[in-house]
Amino acid sequence: MSSLETVLERIDSDLDKSLERLFAFLRIPSISTDPAYKDHCRAAAEYVAENLSALGLETSLRPTAGHPVVLGKPPADAGLGKGPKVLFYGHYDVQPVDPLELWQTPPFEPRIAALPDGRKIIVARGACDDKGQAMSFLEACRAFKTVTGTLPLPVTVMIEGEEECGSQHLFGFVKDNAAELRQDLALVCDTSMWDPQTPMITTSLRGLLYEEVRLTCADRDLHSGLFGGAAQNPIRVLAKILAGLHDDNGRVTLPGFYDGVKDLPADVKSELAAINLTAEEFLGPVGLRVPAGEKDRMVIEQIATRPTAEINGIVGGYTGEGAKTVIPAQAMAKVSFRLVGAQDPQKVRDAFRAFVRARLPEDCRAEFSNFGMAPAFELSFDSPALSRTRAALTAEWGKKPVTVGEGGSIPIVADFKRLLGMDTIMVGFANDDDRVHSPNEKFDLTSFHKGMRSWARILAALAE
Amino acid sequence: MSSLETVLERIDSDLDKSLERLFAFLRIPSISTDPAYKDHCRAAAEYVAENLSALGLETSLRPTAGHPVVLGKPPADAGLGKGPKVLFYGHYDVQPVDPLELWQTPPFEPRIAALPDGRKIIVARGACDDKGQAMSFLEACRAFKTVTGTLPLPVTVMIEGEEECGSQHLFGFVKDNAAELRQDLALVCDTSMWDPQTPMITTSLRGLLYEEVRLTCADRDLHSGLFGGAAQNPIRVLAKILAGLHDDNGRVTLPGFYDGVKDLPADVKSELAAINLTAEEFLGPVGLRVPAGEKDRMVIEQIATRPTAEINGIVGGYTGEGAKTVIPAQAMAKVSFRLVGAQDPQKVRDAFRAFVRARLPEDCRAEFSNFGMAPAFELSFDSPALSRTRAALTAEWGKKPVTVGEGGSIPIVADFKRLLGMDTIMVGFANDDDRVHSPNEKFDLTSFHKGMRSWARILAALAE
Repeated sequence: MSSLETVLERIDSDLDKSLERLFAFLRIPSISTDPAYKDHCRAAAEYVAENLSALGLETSLRPTAGHPVVLGKPPADAGLGKGPKVLFYGHYDVQPVDPLELWQTPPFEPRIAALPDGRKIIVARGACDDKGQAMSFLEACRAFKTVTGTLPLPVTVMIEGEEECGSQHLFGFVKDNAAELRQDLALVCDTSMWDPQTPMITTSLRGLLYEEVRLTCADRDLHSGLFGGAAQNPIRVLAKILAGLHDDNGRVTLPGFYDGVKDLPADVKSELAAINLTAEEFLGPVGLRVPAGEKDRMVIEQIATRPTAEINGIVGGYTGEGAKTVIPAQAMAKVSFRLVGAQDPQKVRDAFRAFVRARLPEDCRAEFSNFGMAPAFELSFDSPALSRTRAALTAEWGKKPVTVGEGGSIPIVADFKRLLGMDTIMVGFANDDDRVHSPNEKFDLTSFHKGMRSWARILAALAE
Repeated sequence: MSSLETVLERIDSDLDKSLERLFAFLRIPSISTDPAYKDHCRAAAEYVAENLSALGLETSLRPTAGHPVVLGKPPADAGLGKGPKVLFYGHYDVQPVDPLELWQTPPFEPRIAALPDGRKIIVARGACDDKGQAMSFLEACRAFKTVTGTLPLPVTVMIEGEEECGSQHLFGFVKDNAAELRQDLALVCDTSMWDPQTPMITTSLRGLLYEEVRLTCADRDLHSGLFGGAAQNPIRVLAKILAGLHDDNGRVTLPGFYDGVKDLPADVKSELAAINLTAEEFLGPVGLRVPAGEKDRMVIEQIATRPTAEINGIVGGYTGEGAKTVIPAQAMAKVSFRLVGAQDPQKVRDAFRAFVRARLPEDCRAEFSNFGMAPAFELSFDSPALSRTRAALTAEWGKKPVTVGEGGSIPIVADFKRLLGMDTIMVGFANDDDRVHSPNEKFDLTSFHKGMRSWARILAALAE
């Protein structure tokens, strides 16, 4: 029997103890955004540190201006092994629990329950995001340590405590400790399965440019009876500018916007086509039917691998009940762009601002504010780590994982690339019905169990 | 000496007493919108009734569900005289006074002051709007009554107490008492001079159609990272629809919108051109320079005699500080149309709603609410009453009055036309710097004095 098989058996036989350790973690109300929970956050950090020490890692709580970062490093005498050096990232903090009255049981009293379809679930705040997911990795390591006396490759673990409130001190921490943190590859367990039977590797994350534009015409609000017809109306100007951001085929019209956007390799594209994600499946649950993006793209491309422009907010004039005959002095919109490939957020920002300014009539001026500027992350499709991870997941789940981009942004992954020159493999076991950030958060018992087994296989595969 | 000349002399010699009567009126804090001032509103109504009785009118306070209407009618035995029967309309209520701290003296303690340029002014809430204006008419009548023992033509007076809070019971009152109120002509003194030296007759009022449109796409707010690209965004749909409401020449694009809009007669148009209202004069004071309406129209046409479409308000998505990556479920806009000539508000409403519906993509539905629908009012340019009023004002001010449309709406004037088939001559003596509705409201002493003289001349001219 190979050591991997022994490790997998150990994971199976030790499941109750793994659950006990997860439950102990879940009982700590580590709500990072609320200062009242500061001591609990520290307790969660200390609990993580204990777990890292048990793996034989040199462990410390590293202070930040906020909650501490827990860092576990391979001991100096550990030797390097064959495989790549990896950095595992996760977080020990959780979202607030309100509205508390919607929880069926107290959020920090974890329990096993069963869904009507028979699936067993772990219910608690953090069960999935990210305590359950992070523990699936740490428990896989523990099984290796127990069975083989060591980890199969040099693992550094960084578990932060501010992910749910913006990771505001993590960027500086990574920058200041780049030498310690820089490994060959990062691993993150904070993403989803494709569906409950199909694992997924997230191979790209869209970047983000978030702009606010405020138009001003007159120096005061005007009566539309007296001034209507002669006075410039900033809402009208703004509507016209925003209406011009997309052409009739759903493409973004900013000059140079698609610079750095590549088509997917043909094999990846046909894999995505084979998934056959229909508009009905994806949009049906939120009451929609017709994809609104680029007309010549599949839904899965529109949401994952293509750039977008969205108007996230708009306001101007009178918005209360009934009528007010006003021509407002100002109107404001928030406009964001999801970026892919090598799109340069700075250039897109400049193009957007130039686009607006070129369309301003006389008597109208624009002011801009930036609220976010992050490039996309893209794992190279020929990465050896990616093919090994695919093979490992295929072995565990009996089917090939979906490898696809994720529409949203995980800023730390872009930071790893930018600051440490390090790619990230994102594998996670969340399901769409996990109610992450909502009352009655849960994690499938299968996700936890097969998640541990998946990580054991991935570590073994990477170490080969 | 004609009786008119005697009346004008009487007005001059009685000015101090006229001011005393106006000041007594101004001391009553008849703020109609605030229930705390209910008794004061009644006191103002009673004060008006006293004044009407002094003119020999049969006077009564007529109850409504709100503040009473004061009605004065010619006595049954008065005989009809030569001239037309007229209905004078005004209001005894005033706007609230806040912010009180910005008043230089208490708002209900009227005083005479002088501007730096030497103009004497009456300072108080209501000095202009509408107590000073209404009293200029009533005092002209009083001079006639004193000098000749009667009024020069049959005058009915209706002074309401809810103009400043929407005249919500007046429509029903006029409808219910149509037989009593229907005269040959209505007179209103609630408008402005062209400038302090030039009188003005307001010959048209734009109508109004006020619509709210709410677009709904998804059945909940969506994360723009996860759904961006595939989910329909109602702000984007709304922006595109609103951007299409005007063409590049500033014309409204709704099919049939200009049905019933006539060009001005050539002589009226050249009179308006002669006024030469520049963009700098009209827009400069509010920080604008370039007329934004139909490109082939003069500024004064754009604001007074041409129809418009305005977006009065818009809101959707996240409008707070910073960034939220949301695709909202809904977006809303308030859109109003100023109407002229024979434009039919109902038809414009239907055209607007059809315009929106025709531009809705799949996955987007629209709901509409109406908050106003009033046709325009237009005095016929060949009305004999108009030419007599012009002559009277020319005699008093030594220059021809400007006859021009007013951009805003005075609903009662449209009601007089619709319910009673009666035209209205609007003559007023307000100036642009009267701070109507604002702290330190004032009325020029000249406006009051020459206003009384103007009305005496107009009444005499109409009676000829």
